[in-house]
Amino acid sequence: MLVNCAAYQNGRKLADVHIDDINAYRDLPDSFIWVALKEPGPGELAHMTHQFGLHELAVEDAQHGHQRPKIEEYGDSLFAVFHTVEFDEEGEVLVGEMNVFVGRNYVLSVRNRTTQGFQEVRKRCEREPHLLQEGSAFVFYALMDQVVDRYFPILETLGTELEELEDRIFAKASLASSRAIIEDLYSLKRRLVMLYQHTAPLMEPLAKLTGGRIPQVCSGMQHYFRDVYDHLQRIVKTIEGRREMVVTAIQVNLGMISLAENEVTKRLGSFAALFAIPTMIAGIYGMNFANMPELHLKYGFYGCIAVMVAADLALWWRFKRAGWL
Amino acid sequence: MLVNCAAYQNGRKLADVHIDDINAYRDLPDSFIWVALKEPGPGELAHMTHQFGLHELAVEDAQHGHQRPKIEEYGDSLFAVFHTVEFDEEGEVLVGEMNVFVGRNYVLSVRNRTTQGFQEVRKRCEREPHLLQEGSAFVFYALMDQVVDRYFPILETLGTELEELEDRIFAKASLASSRAIIEDLYSLKRRLVMLYQHTAPLMEPLAKLTGGRIPQVCSGMQHYFRDVYDHLQRIVKTIEGRREMVVTAIQVNLGMISLAENEVTKRLGSFAALFAIPTMIAGIYGMNFANMPELHLKYGFYGCIAVMVAADLALWWRFKRAGWL
Amino acid sequence: MLVNCAAYQNGRKLADVHIDDINAYRDLPDSFIWVALKEPGPGELAHMTHQFGLHELAVEDAQHGHQRPKIEEYGDSLFAVFHTVEFDEEGEVLVGEMNVFVGRNYVLSVRNRTTQGFQEVRKRCEREPHLLQEGSAFVFYALMDQVVDRYFPILETLGTELEELEDRIFAKASLASSRAIIEDLYSLKRRLVMLYQHTAPLMEPLAKLTGGRIPQVCSGMQHYFRDVYDHLQRIVKTIEGRREMVVTAIQVNLGMISLAENEVTKRLGSFAALFAIPTMIAGIYGMNFANMPELHLKYGFYGCIAVMVAADLALWWRFKRAGWL
Amino acid sequence: MLVNCAAYQNGRKLADVHIDDINAYRDLPDSFIWVALKEPGPGELAHMTHQFGLHELAVEDAQHGHQRPKIEEYGDSLFAVFHTVEFDEEGEVLVGEMNVFVGRNYVLSVRNRTTQGFQEVRKRCEREPHLLQEGSAFVFYALMDQVVDRYFPILETLGTELEELEDRIFAKASLASSRAIIEDLYSLKRRLVMLYQHTAPLMEPLAKLTGGRIPQVCSGMQHYFRDVYDHLQRIVKTIEGRREMVVTAIQVNLGMISLAENEVTKRLGSFAALFAIPTMIAGIYGMNFANMPELHLKYGFYGCIAVMVAADLALWWRFKRAGWL
Amino acid sequence: MLVNCAAYQNGRKLADVHIDDINAYRDLPDSFIWVALKEPGPGELAHMTHQFGLHELAVEDAQHGHQRPKIEEYGDSLFAVFHTVEFDEEGEVLVGEMNVFVGRNYVLSVRNRTTQGFQEVRKRCEREPHLLQEGSAFVFYALMDQVVDRYFPILETLGTELEELEDRIFAKASLASSRAIIEDLYSLKRRLVMLYQHTAPLMEPLAKLTGGRIPQVCSGMQHYFRDVYDHLQRIVKTIEGRREMVVTAIQVNLGMISLAENEVTKRLGSFAALFAIPTMIAGIYGMNFANMPELHLKYGFYGCIAVMVAADLALWWRFKRAGWL
Repeated sequence: MLVNCAAYQNGRKLADVHIDDINAYRDLPDSFIWVALKEPGPGELAHMTHQFGLHELAVEDAQHGHQRPKIEEYGDSLFAVFHTVEFDEEGEVLVGEMNVFVGRNYVLSVRNRTTQGFQEVRKRCEREPHLLQEGSAFVFYALMDQVVDRYFPILETLGTELEELEDRIFAKASLASSRAIIEDLYSLKRRLVMLYQHTAPLMEPLAKLTGGRIPQVCSGMQHYFRDVYDHLQRIVKTIEGRREMVVTAIQVNLGMISLAENEVTKRLGSFAALFAIPTMIAGIYGMNFANMPELHLKYGFYGCIAVMVAADLALWWRFKRAGWL
Repeated sequence: MLVNCAAYQNGRKLADVHIDDINAYRDLPDSFIWVALKEPGPGELAHMTHQFGLHELAVEDAQHGHQRPKIEEYGDSLFAVFHTVEFDEEGEVLVGEMNVFVGRNYVLSVRNRTTQGFQEVRKRCEREPHLLQEGSAFVFYALMDQVVDRYFPILETLGTELEELEDRIFAKASLASSRAIIEDLYSLKRRLVMLYQHTAPLMEPLAKLTGGRIPQVCSGMQHYFRDVYDHLQRIVKTIEGRREMVVTAIQVNLGMISLAENEVTKRLGSFAALFAIPTMIAGIYGMNFANMPELHLKYGFYGCIAVMVAADLALWWRFKRAGWL
Repeated sequence: MLVNCAAYQNGRKLADVHIDDINAYRDLPDSFIWVALKEPGPGELAHMTHQFGLHELAVEDAQHGHQRPKIEEYGDSLFAVFHTVEFDEEGEVLVGEMNVFVGRNYVLSVRNRTTQGFQEVRKRCEREPHLLQEGSAFVFYALMDQVVDRYFPILETLGTELEELEDRIFAKASLASSRAIIEDLYSLKRRLVMLYQHTAPLMEPLAKLTGGRIPQVCSGMQHYFRDVYDHLQRIVKTIEGRREMVVTAIQVNLGMISLAENEVTKRLGSFAALFAIPTMIAGIYGMNFANMPELHLKYGFYGCIAVMVAADLALWWRFKRAGWL
Repeated sequence: MLVNCAAYQNGRKLADVHIDDINAYRDLPDSFIWVALKEPGPGELAHMTHQFGLHELAVEDAQHGHQRPKIEEYGDSLFAVFHTVEFDEEGEVLVGEMNVFVGRNYVLSVRNRTTQGFQEVRKRCEREPHLLQEGSAFVFYALMDQVVDRYFPILETLGTELEELEDRIFAKASLASSRAIIEDLYSLKRRLVMLYQHTAPLMEPLAKLTGGRIPQVCSGMQHYFRDVYDHLQRIVKTIEGRREMVVTAIQVNLGMISLAENEVTKRLGSFAALFAIPTMIAGIYGMNFANMPELHLKYGFYGCIAVMVAADLALWWRFKRAGWL
Repeated sequence: MLVNCAAYQNGRKLADVHIDDINAYRDLPDSFIWVALKEPGPGELAHMTHQFGLHELAVEDAQHGHQRPKIEEYGDSLFAVFHTVEFDEEGEVLVGEMNVFVGRNYVLSVRNRTTQGFQEVRKRCEREPHLLQEGSAFVFYALMDQVVDRYFPILETLGTELEELEDRIFAKASLASSRAIIEDLYSLKRRLVMLYQHTAPLMEPLAKLTGGRIPQVCSGMQHYFRDVYDHLQRIVKTIEGRREMVVTAIQVNLGMISLAENEVTKRLGSFAALFAIPTMIAGIYGMNFANMPELHLKYGFYGCIAVMVAADLALWWRFKRAGWL
């Protein structure tokens, strides 16, 4: 589905272009065409391939999806695959793809399985003609910047989740909640690993745009790509830190479960002792010896009960003091 | 065993060739010979060695097998060892080998201990003459692509297994199932480590075909090898992620076992208390004190039983509320 | 907020400069202007951008903050982001930012969310004119040196904390303290990871100032930057060592908890045995057999009690000796 | 002790050489002298040093032993230290050393603390004159190949051990065997770490012989050294995989121990309940209430016993069904 | 404090030199001055700075200490910081520093907080004039060699400690000893991490002296520095292996503690059963049913006791056989 197709010259929009008229605008000086497609059919992609001379392998990748995030050079054009990460209404993670073809005189973005669009990138670019006149590479930068910026809120959500989990681990918790904490820690780890795999592979190719032998089409834009690179690096390093903390949290939680077991054992032992003393005393005065003078005391029974209660109270107090109850 | 032997010129099949006639086709311009052997005897390999001038060490490797996956240059020819991974009917993992010798004018594939063949690669190549005319390097690419693509279903099977294990870990499980979960986690880890060792070593030599000093015979094919490299990288990184998750799953499972222990202890303690109270009361009224007025009440016994039942019910209710029962 | 603005020539202070007069001093030979801003508004930054020709992206970074620590070249000027780490009065960690713009003839420092200032750096520089005459790069070094030196006390505090935690782990501890130890270990780990993320990213760009292709503005200052680099490396390596020790401490603490459980179980078992013996004996002499001669002995009861006490004493002694009590 | 000393020319053995006559053969064209020493005294080494102009530091290393495995260049000669690993009759690991000095016209091997010799290498070389005429570098390769090939059976033994341990972990095991499993896992880990330290250091220097700037004496032999390198890499990677699996096995075993604890607790609890019910009922009918009609029933006692047995049977059946017994 | 100051020419000692006469010997051909200081005051260092033209930053480092181990170039001189590790009489680890300044015509060693001196290095050097005539670089090598060689006994002590700990872990141990084992494992880990941090940082700068662009002053000495590098590498790799083993030992010890808990639980359960049976039987014959014929048997009581004993013996035998007791 075509989202947008326009020609730009010297940083200003020239015209909206019908996709059949692309060749009329393609070779103007200092100009480029910016096409945005959403879940295009094979026909649309074939048309673009023809118009811009895209490389067969890149088009195949864009069509089939499920590539790793990457930035590849094909002659003097670039092909990039970015992964978008979003939460749907039920909090499930949705991973989509944003494919960008960049040549000297065109930018073609193809997005698949994403709910959020990139129209605001176009608006922002059009508001800044002095930057837009850098050409297609600036659009490439702006799109990438947007993709990477959208990782931050995801990361923040996972960060908040970790903090809440930490609080729950150290709160005095019931068995049921312990079970839930373990499940949530595992799920958080899984999502962090997933997020890592959707973001980290971009590091290396992006680094190549910031120095060394820079592709022709991106020359003079290093500072901008370095900026995105910095953001990406912050994201990746934060994920790494969180992963380590989740591992620690799982270990720590194991310790808390052991401590809870300790506590239960102590409490049970204490209660057992509170029952065992009267039972023992009762057993003693239930013996059938002929000569047991206490049995004949008038208040022997009450005295005996009193002793039982006193012993239990003493024990109770000791257990309380030792923190066993 | 000879599977196939044919000569190609300018991307089109020239003829099926008898292995004794190879030298007649070997030196045609823009042509190459594609030979496929399956578990060849020493005689067949010796014949090929003679026909194509293969290097002694490479031939030895192909014959003895049990090499690491690798791609090696011998002068201006290449020798590659790929590992194939398949499930047999009983779900056991089978590891086979695919050895490929590539020169300017020949491709020789030798497969050992594999059940699936590579005939479909030949068919696909013959359907695309514009690509096949790239020569032997394209065949090399197509074979490698096929080997790597066949890792994906294996990986998916292991992924599904992991997901099922996760569900089983967090399901309320009996002791017997806990034991099975641990065994299955261990077995999954073992197979992931194994799969890693059959795939990861290919990364480095494959990377060398995608840039830098590219072997003569593969020049102009970088984009294709980069494509396979991307797939391989996705496989290897996915394995790494899964290995990490299995380790976490083992830790988490340990936590679940500790929680189960906790639960059992609490339940046992509760039951013990339910028995201990009547036993204690019975002990008290089993004492032989002369003066115990309750003993002479008409409904003393029934009152006593009622007290026991009441105490147990109260306790039961408290334990239920606290989640101990 | 402007903190300070002065011009220096040949290592000596020329004059305090009003920010509107900067251009009067900007182009003197062998001189530079050193401006210090604290949480500046957009107007102040815009003014500086105009005066010194700062790069748009760098200014944006300085304004928005939350960058990774970094040192970036923009043409022949440098832009650096350092993170400051401080404890507030309640022992909470405060992370601030120090942004430094360095050109041949200017140094502009912008600090945000820091409580400690850097005036002492200016004083130290002014006391050492033979060094200050190296120009703006020396000021850059002096600021960085100060930032890095301030990490040491933080690190020391965390080190002391670790040592105290070690002592607490191996001290004979109550349940409540075990819980606190786990929490504190986790918290320490979290702060070490955090400190790592604020310091380690500086390693790589700083290394670049100590050798290889050194930015023009810093040439001849490698020895100084290497000095800071060494300090930073010591900090980062120390953090790594501490992180590893905290992980070990958590494991070791888990072992201590298990040992404590062991101890509790043994103690409870011992006490249970001390109660079980008299109860069993009492049960035996509470049987109603017609012919039980002991029952009719004059001191049978007392003898029986004596046996109970003797058995318990013997048991007690054995348990004591075995370390169960 | 001199094992062997012979001169070779154009791949064929010229003569056995007395060590005092070495200089007579040393400078023949296309020839080299191959000397094998076993635990030589200082005199023998001094003689060789004199004959071949060995470097003082290399000779010292060969004499004192306990070096890391390494390959070092001294001018245009090489000095290599390999570690041999063998099992003695009692299954203990023996580590020996094989030092090789290689120059254009000599190979000197010095082995220490090894039981197996390398005579078969000499025989193999003499059977392949077309290879042996490559000169001393081929002998160097053949010796190294032999050392590395001898790691495989060691590795296989450790692999079998791991598999047996896995079986024992998941078998229903007694306490005594659990203790043995832990010890054996630890011992296996220790030996894997040891084997790693004797093999892995060779990787890097060996890689240098397979490409890049190759020492003069080894030129033209890259393919051969690459072959040994591949074998070594397989060994090292297999060790790494095994180490990881042993760590996992230790964790998994911990889980099995916890499960066993769980089982014991459940069984004990079940038995306790089976005793507690009759005891409670007996206590009730042991009370001394005046009005307890059941006591006077003719078959009251037997009925009571029947109730006890019935309750225990019901409980037994429930525990069996729940898998607690 | 001045330890020694002498001039050497062509490998032979020329004269002991008073520090005020250094300039008289400083510029002789093929000679150098070797000064050894111990915990020098600022005055002494200032004098040396003046005599040899030392770099301000290096002198500062030598004075303040607490640097990382390092080797730095300052123009055509070198400055190195080594850490010495010693045990004091009470087995505590002492870390000292050895700073070495090396120029073409001088070596200045400054040691701080070390108990052992380096006089023997001087003696060894003076005994080997053919090596000493290599100049100051040889002295530098000899000092470094000595520092590194002194790490070996430390490492061996820690290795012995690990072996003893392994024995203690697998010995049948009391609770008290388990606690001690954990503490000792932790302490060992801590010291290994510490030793690593004092040795590993030297690897990288030392590697630079063995190849590539070698500092002028060390040229021709690569073989010697490679030798020290090898020793250092062995030390560092051994530490790494030990660290891994300590981590495994901690895990394994956790398993042993769990096993011990298992054993205790089983033993306690067994004893409980031995008490529970007689108590239950006694309870039954303590019931007050009117018709209990056994009560009136002449030897009923003794028969009952016999049954109790028989049941306990049977149980005892079963528990023994099952390894619970």
